[in-house]
Amino acid sequence: MSKYLKTDLNDTICALATSGGIGAIGVIRISGIDAIKIVNELFKGKNLEQQQTHTVHFGKIMDGANIVDEVLASIFVSPKSYTGENTVELSCHGSAYIQQQILELLVKKGARLAKPGEFTLRAFLNKKLDLSQAEAVADLIASNSAETHKTAMQQMRGGFSNQINILKEKLVNFASLIELELDFAEEDVEFASKDELRKLVNDILILLNELIISFQYGNVIKNGIPTVIAGKPNAGKSTLLNALLNEERAIVSHIAGTTRDTIEEVFVIDGINFRLTDTAGIRNSTDSIESIGIEKTFEKIGKASVILYLFDASTTTNEELENELHEFKKFDAIIIPVGNKIDLLSQPITPHTSHLTPIYISSLQKKNIHSIIDELKKVVEKNRVNHDVVITNIRHFEALKNAAESLQQVLVAIDAKLSGEMLSLDIRKAIFHLAEIVGEVTTEDLLGNIFSKFCIGK
Amino acid sequence: MSKYLKTDLNDTICALATSGGIGAIGVIRISGIDAIKIVNELFKGKNLEQQQTHTVHFGKIMDGANIVDEVLASIFVSPKSYTGENTVELSCHGSAYIQQQILELLVKKGARLAKPGEFTLRAFLNKKLDLSQAEAVADLIASNSAETHKTAMQQMRGGFSNQINILKEKLVNFASLIELELDFAEEDVEFASKDELRKLVNDILILLNELIISFQYGNVIKNGIPTVIAGKPNAGKSTLLNALLNEERAIVSHIAGTTRDTIEEVFVIDGINFRLTDTAGIRNSTDSIESIGIEKTFEKIGKASVILYLFDASTTTNEELENELHEFKKFDAIIIPVGNKIDLLSQPITPHTSHLTPIYISSLQKKNIHSIIDELKKVVEKNRVNHDVVITNIRHFEALKNAAESLQQVLVAIDAKLSGEMLSLDIRKAIFHLAEIVGEVTTEDLLGNIFSKFCIGK
Repeated sequence: MSKYLKTDLNDTICALATSGGIGAIGVIRISGIDAIKIVNELFKGKNLEQQQTHTVHFGKIMDGANIVDEVLASIFVSPKSYTGENTVELSCHGSAYIQQQILELLVKKGARLAKPGEFTLRAFLNKKLDLSQAEAVADLIASNSAETHKTAMQQMRGGFSNQINILKEKLVNFASLIELELDFAEEDVEFASKDELRKLVNDILILLNELIISFQYGNVIKNGIPTVIAGKPNAGKSTLLNALLNEERAIVSHIAGTTRDTIEEVFVIDGINFRLTDTAGIRNSTDSIESIGIEKTFEKIGKASVILYLFDASTTTNEELENELHEFKKFDAIIIPVGNKIDLLSQPITPHTSHLTPIYISSLQKKNIHSIIDELKKVVEKNRVNHDVVITNIRHFEALKNAAESLQQVLVAIDAKLSGEMLSLDIRKAIFHLAEIVGEVTTEDLLGNIFSKFCIGK
Repeated sequence: MSKYLKTDLNDTICALATSGGIGAIGVIRISGIDAIKIVNELFKGKNLEQQQTHTVHFGKIMDGANIVDEVLASIFVSPKSYTGENTVELSCHGSAYIQQQILELLVKKGARLAKPGEFTLRAFLNKKLDLSQAEAVADLIASNSAETHKTAMQQMRGGFSNQINILKEKLVNFASLIELELDFAEEDVEFASKDELRKLVNDILILLNELIISFQYGNVIKNGIPTVIAGKPNAGKSTLLNALLNEERAIVSHIAGTTRDTIEEVFVIDGINFRLTDTAGIRNSTDSIESIGIEKTFEKIGKASVILYLFDASTTTNEELENELHEFKKFDAIIIPVGNKIDLLSQPITPHTSHLTPIYISSLQKKNIHSIIDELKKVVEKNRVNHDVVITNIRHFEALKNAAESLQQVLVAIDAKLSGEMLSLDIRKAIFHLAEIVGEVTTEDLLGNIFSKFCIGK
């Protein structure tokens, strides 16, 4: 039993479901067998216990003779609620003081403050959602771009669980056949053709591997693509950063609430977050302090998936560029050379002979910036997987890998003509790992671990 | 016409009504003649236009074929809503991305993003609230202590408006009688006895003055009582600050979201916020840098309403204390001398002969801290006015003062036996100022000024 969560459902929980800051309204959610009864004891207005599900009632929350707030109480009668339990949502004024007063009164009347994720845990325990759907709720709340939103929504809608369940069904059928054979072991019958078994396991492995591979894209969706602007001092890196951010704002509106620190700007291309970092200029230096700066720059570059290498097109020869780019070959990143300052050129650029074709721009005059955006779009495309379902959750990734490993063992066992017992064991292992994803097998620790990361009130 | 607000009611407005941070859920409010129709166009589920008022419906917000979110839509049919208009409240997942998507879709379908306070402005324009009640809504949302909450709630419930309306009625009757006299001026009748007039004006002035005086307490309620801890270096000021804050936390639970900066701690006694500041130690110094520090300390002390003067009871003689306290007499503040370090005393304190009776404590051993709290409670009591209605709004304060001034003019006019025209004019002025408070007379600028200070979504 995790210390964070109670998986018994006998008490009534309450929490502020909206964000804690000052807003026009706040919503307090109460769920459990006594939810409506408890609120009714504090509510001056209609008798809430006599109201139909999915109705809203204006009234006052009273602390004895004192009015705490005028509220709207929405009634949801079990099982027709998010948690599956009796639920009341109190829409009150958005004052922290009022919200705390109401929560205190609810606790006085017998409710308990909910732990993080406890409403969704109850939805899971009451079978309103499976585990991967429940996890998607947290991702949905945290979603901050079109792609994070899309994958979380898909997962919450059960697209991912469905796929897992189909795979699991196939495996269960298989295991049953093999186990049936074991019952008839004396008679040496073969219910499950080993060739068919091999084919089916291979088919499932293809599907699992697609899902496993999609995790790389899922990770990109969830965490964005780390991108740096590198180049010599005065190549125009900061101007480019600003030009890119301006360009991007024209393409997609910026999402309110995106975290920005001083060194990282997030912008969205085709629904994917690019986390863009400017770096200090790179120059050869024997000065030790400068060397440390350069070291840090290279450290940053080492973490990037995309390097926008900026050079001064008006002064850099093709040979110099080749040499400079050579240094970056050691990084496992996509390198996009960008020739800046074409406004200073008196004649057109000589076509570049190397395999690298730079993009030529003027960040000062905001010329051709869109070509960089186009190139970054290609990076998104390159990462995108052609699969409806994308894995974004490391727990699912691990479970899928474990399932795939067990299935590989099955293949080995078939080839080695191992006994049905061994085959069955490995298949059951794979089934176990797939069942883990949707929450058919869970431990309290696992649930605690998952739901304690939720926000309170969800 | 203020640039902030539209006082026509022909369009449909929408806004996020909950706080912008990440929460489990967010609520988007849509109000206006087309509110239900617009939401219905985006809503996959029941036909919202065919639903009864005060019902809740589960469904999906669609962007074409894409699901933006699973939501609960609460329907309020005009005039049974906060604004008096058709209203929908969409309870969606608490993701800024989702909320922005939904708002963009609503705008695409013909709604307009609401300006700050525009929902409450509409409630006012649709006569669901008078102006002082509308103003109380903002105060209620900002309320962070029992007293701010109580006065705002009282004002929102109309207690203040009622009182104003009763006064106004009396004045209107008066003015009518005097104006009736004017019609019969030739006949020299007296419908309104000047003695009765004087008595009535005096009675009203007493009431107005009570309200005007209550503003001082209203201000204390709204802005708290600035309190400093002063004293010589090493008197134990910081330890006392911490001891007080600990003591207070045991008495009243701290309100989440209270603003704290490094130099000011807010704590609540009997529902009133004390804003407590520590100061640098005061010592006589010829060092110029230290003098600046001391100057700043005295500046801070000058702004305080309460000075907790801390001295070392184990080393300070009565004469020294008298001298030290003498410096503080110039401040318009309540001075509470506090003798610290009684744990270092080998024998009981000699009763103090001065008119000032210090509180003796040990902040280190947390002894007798509650006596300071008791003394601060007395400060609250001293400020409290024995009047049901407390004015907290400077606009009301000004209007009441103007009304009182006009009524003083009436008294002067009576004594000077001025004409009925003059009397009537002054009475009408007083009526005008009282009508201003409840919003019977307004200008767009005034409304803009009031509602633009609201948060968006209210």
